[in-house]
Amino acid sequence: MADDFSRYSLVIGRFQPLHLGHMDVIRKCAEESDHLTIGIGSAQYSHTVENPFTAGERYLMIEETLKDEGIKNYSIVPVEDLNRYSVWVSHVVSMCPPFNTVYSNNPFTKRLFTEAGFEIKASPLYNRSVYSGTEVRRRMESDGDWRSLVPPAVAEVIEKIDGVGRVKSLSGKDAEL
Amino acid sequence: MADDFSRYSLVIGRFQPLHLGHMDVIRKCAEESDHLTIGIGSAQYSHTVENPFTAGERYLMIEETLKDEGIKNYSIVPVEDLNRYSVWVSHVVSMCPPFNTVYSNNPFTKRLFTEAGFEIKASPLYNRSVYSGTEVRRRMESDGDWRSLVPPAVAEVIEKIDGVGRVKSLSGKDAEL
Amino acid sequence: MADDFSRYSLVIGRFQPLHLGHMDVIRKCAEESDHLTIGIGSAQYSHTVENPFTAGERYLMIEETLKDEGIKNYSIVPVEDLNRYSVWVSHVVSMCPPFNTVYSNNPFTKRLFTEAGFEIKASPLYNRSVYSGTEVRRRMESDGDWRSLVPPAVAEVIEKIDGVGRVKSLSGKDAEL
Amino acid sequence: MADDFSRYSLVIGRFQPLHLGHMDVIRKCAEESDHLTIGIGSAQYSHTVENPFTAGERYLMIEETLKDEGIKNYSIVPVEDLNRYSVWVSHVVSMCPPFNTVYSNNPFTKRLFTEAGFEIKASPLYNRSVYSGTEVRRRMESDGDWRSLVPPAVAEVIEKIDGVGRVKSLSGKDAEL
Amino acid sequence: MADDFSRYSLVIGRFQPLHLGHMDVIRKCAEESDHLTIGIGSAQYSHTVENPFTAGERYLMIEETLKDEGIKNYSIVPVEDLNRYSVWVSHVVSMCPPFNTVYSNNPFTKRLFTEAGFEIKASPLYNRSVYSGTEVRRRMESDGDWRSLVPPAVAEVIEKIDGVGRVKSLSGKDAEL
Amino acid sequence: MADDFSRYSLVIGRFQPLHLGHMDVIRKCAEESDHLTIGIGSAQYSHTVENPFTAGERYLMIEETLKDEGIKNYSIVPVEDLNRYSVWVSHVVSMCPPFNTVYSNNPFTKRLFTEAGFEIKASPLYNRSVYSGTEVRRRMESDGDWRSLVPPAVAEVIEKIDGVGRVKSLSGKDAEL
Repeated sequence: MADDFSRYSLVIGRFQPLHLGHMDVIRKCAEESDHLTIGIGSAQYSHTVENPFTAGERYLMIEETLKDEGIKNYSIVPVEDLNRYSVWVSHVVSMCPPFNTVYSNNPFTKRLFTEAGFEIKASPLYNRSVYSGTEVRRRMESDGDWRSLVPPAVAEVIEKIDGVGRVKSLSGKDAEL
Repeated sequence: MADDFSRYSLVIGRFQPLHLGHMDVIRKCAEESDHLTIGIGSAQYSHTVENPFTAGERYLMIEETLKDEGIKNYSIVPVEDLNRYSVWVSHVVSMCPPFNTVYSNNPFTKRLFTEAGFEIKASPLYNRSVYSGTEVRRRMESDGDWRSLVPPAVAEVIEKIDGVGRVKSLSGKDAEL
Repeated sequence: MADDFSRYSLVIGRFQPLHLGHMDVIRKCAEESDHLTIGIGSAQYSHTVENPFTAGERYLMIEETLKDEGIKNYSIVPVEDLNRYSVWVSHVVSMCPPFNTVYSNNPFTKRLFTEAGFEIKASPLYNRSVYSGTEVRRRMESDGDWRSLVPPAVAEVIEKIDGVGRVKSLSGKDAEL
Repeated sequence: MADDFSRYSLVIGRFQPLHLGHMDVIRKCAEESDHLTIGIGSAQYSHTVENPFTAGERYLMIEETLKDEGIKNYSIVPVEDLNRYSVWVSHVVSMCPPFNTVYSNNPFTKRLFTEAGFEIKASPLYNRSVYSGTEVRRRMESDGDWRSLVPPAVAEVIEKIDGVGRVKSLSGKDAEL
Repeated sequence: MADDFSRYSLVIGRFQPLHLGHMDVIRKCAEESDHLTIGIGSAQYSHTVENPFTAGERYLMIEETLKDEGIKNYSIVPVEDLNRYSVWVSHVVSMCPPFNTVYSNNPFTKRLFTEAGFEIKASPLYNRSVYSGTEVRRRMESDGDWRSLVPPAVAEVIEKIDGVGRVKSLSGKDAEL
Repeated sequence: MADDFSRYSLVIGRFQPLHLGHMDVIRKCAEESDHLTIGIGSAQYSHTVENPFTAGERYLMIEETLKDEGIKNYSIVPVEDLNRYSVWVSHVVSMCPPFNTVYSNNPFTKRLFTEAGFEIKASPLYNRSVYSGTEVRRRMESDGDWRSLVPPAVAEVIEKIDGVGRVKSLSGKDAEL
């Protein structure tokens, strides 16, 4: 444990699923920090087209990938949405180990943490047109090459839980009754 | 009560309102089952354009129609949405009498119950371009012939609760303050 | 369906489990009414010492017993607690078929429905020292004669779902971790 | 306190932020009433593009403006959305001082309060193409003249809390992680 | 509006009902402050033995009493409990006009606001053995002299809403079904 | 990652705070498992006498202690209570990496996971009269020797966050207003 938490930081994403762009961000943030908390946002959602994987499945994807990469100074925390943004920062703070810096390019996240007195740093950039959860899910649905967009451990987890089957079955037309 | 619950089934719909297409499904599912639970989905919603009727009003529509049809081997259960899909099957199970088979054509419902180990059967088909809640509500709004799309008991309930008046008043332009 | 809902009534209980005292009440209320809605209160609770059975299990107990008794003019509706009593009557009303009269001896229930303009009638009396959910559960726990306190269909349901096993296992001393 | 609450009324808005059109409505409703409750709707939302200000900030805007105008016969009440419309009227009633009349042009609000037995009066009209929360926020974002659309006290509150900075920062493109 | 919010303060109570001890506190806090926000805690609860009155009824009691006393520099805000204490301060802040000082003798309230960086001042003392909500409700129940414990406007509100009838009816023995 | 999740297990506690008895359990469970998920129960509670520490603070205590002990095959997951026990197992499953075995001596936890088809193993025993969260908090309150009951890293975390100050301030008499 460091003497204080001054170089403890936070990065939050939905990780539906974790892809190589996310990993660029996590790798660089972890390097710059004594300790990095990786918040899994929208933790209570799963089994929808936009959020196919549970928080626990996403936790396993991140943990196995970081183990493969040899990154050790991190915690993973599922964070449920509250949809009451005035208390969201307090909620995140209560669920996570201490942190002083937040990495984000999201204006909403940046504003909330700034108003609460946290230091904000821009997330490292990556090619968002290639690496995105939407693109990974689109390729899963259409039998495209989604594996090249994600770390090997993520592909392994998705296979073990039949993630492609889930993505495909959720994308069917919605027919009530 | 049957010796076991092996031929107890479930069908879920929003029934806004119950129409003749729904009744085709319910009639056939009830015939194939020892017992059929009819789940009224999105039970907490009412008084909106998409969900004008309360769960209790929908309950009465279904009950009166099944009485008219002479169907007896059913239960009706209002089921509130939880918007936390990983627990939705457990929630439905806890609210309903036991069942082993789920009738559904909805990919989302089918996936969730399949992952939880239930047997899924396709719902019987009906002409969805004619029989749909949306169409019934559209005709109510425009003084069209909605009565021919619903069972007589449904029309009677809707008249008793001034359902057409509600549908019309909700469809006005939304003007704040 | 009656011409109006003037003789439609409501009775609410937790039914953990349904016992012969409850049945006295239901039988008399159903006789006095065109239609009786039986609300299963605290519907979201189960698997605790006070509330061992799910709403769906309680639904089945009631339904099978009424079938045995030949009572037909009823609906069964699981009603979740909201713990926001100012809106509780509206919540019950929205979940249940229409009713004008409420049978209750509970001061809280009586006050809330009275303030909302409903007619309140006292529930028929029964011997509460013998017939109570607490006593039934106590006998289950201690291998006493609980069967004589409940209708035969309730005993049958409890056996099918291993209800005694559940009551016994929940009553163990609470030891964290 | 009046002898009874017959001329106590309610008007509800989101007030994101309070503008001169809102004030026309409030001024006229307060004149016609012994007492006017001003409900701040969607009270739990803030820090989004559509709902940038907290309920407390909106409370201060209204209170300071009414003080400037010399209006005294009012209460201000933040009202959280419940998204369960069948109980919404009961919820509003429980949070607000007594009222018998509701001012509204919103079909949804009018229908719900009408079904619950309240008197509905149309809100006084104002020029909605000029005075709207959307237009005020649009001008804040683009450095336009938003001050001429709001009462002086609202402009002062917005400056003190850096409201324009918040609106601008929230309107950035949403980039996850 | 003051130039800044440095002398804006908050006091929170349940006010079930407002009594003369509460008024001593409010009077002194209002004198020491530019502006005092009076938070009505546990706003969503009502119709129970401990919390008989709705937030709206409590709002009216406070407002009418302060009008009688000539106190003007205050806001009244119903605050719902969240039962998630790590976010409670943020929740209160979001619902209330700005404040920097919190008056409280409650260790829990003091700790939460202290950790969040607010200035805490001890509430003025009053005779808690005589003036307490519990004592007022006890006297209502037993036809004792409750009026001498509350401001005249509170007694008037309680009479208009039949508050004594409600307290008495809620205190009956709880008999299920 | 193991070939399958057959030796992945779960243990859940509140850890208010983590003590040496907990560590005996965690150490033995981790030894017997390929992977152990440590669920932090009642994650949303903090700042009360029974639950003084946030989930994030408890997370840090566990993580630092396991690092000191050289245990590596674990995940830590804060799990919020839902108070709807029929869905609790599904909720836990959705938040945690996969597991097949649950370590517990708690009858309630054992029953719920047994009904859901999980393998239950008894938690290893430890001296509960000496090692308990209640005893640790009692000693904090009375300036007793609490440090000897917890791992060194836990004592260090508690000092850094002034945990003793919090426990003491929360234990004061509760005085409203």
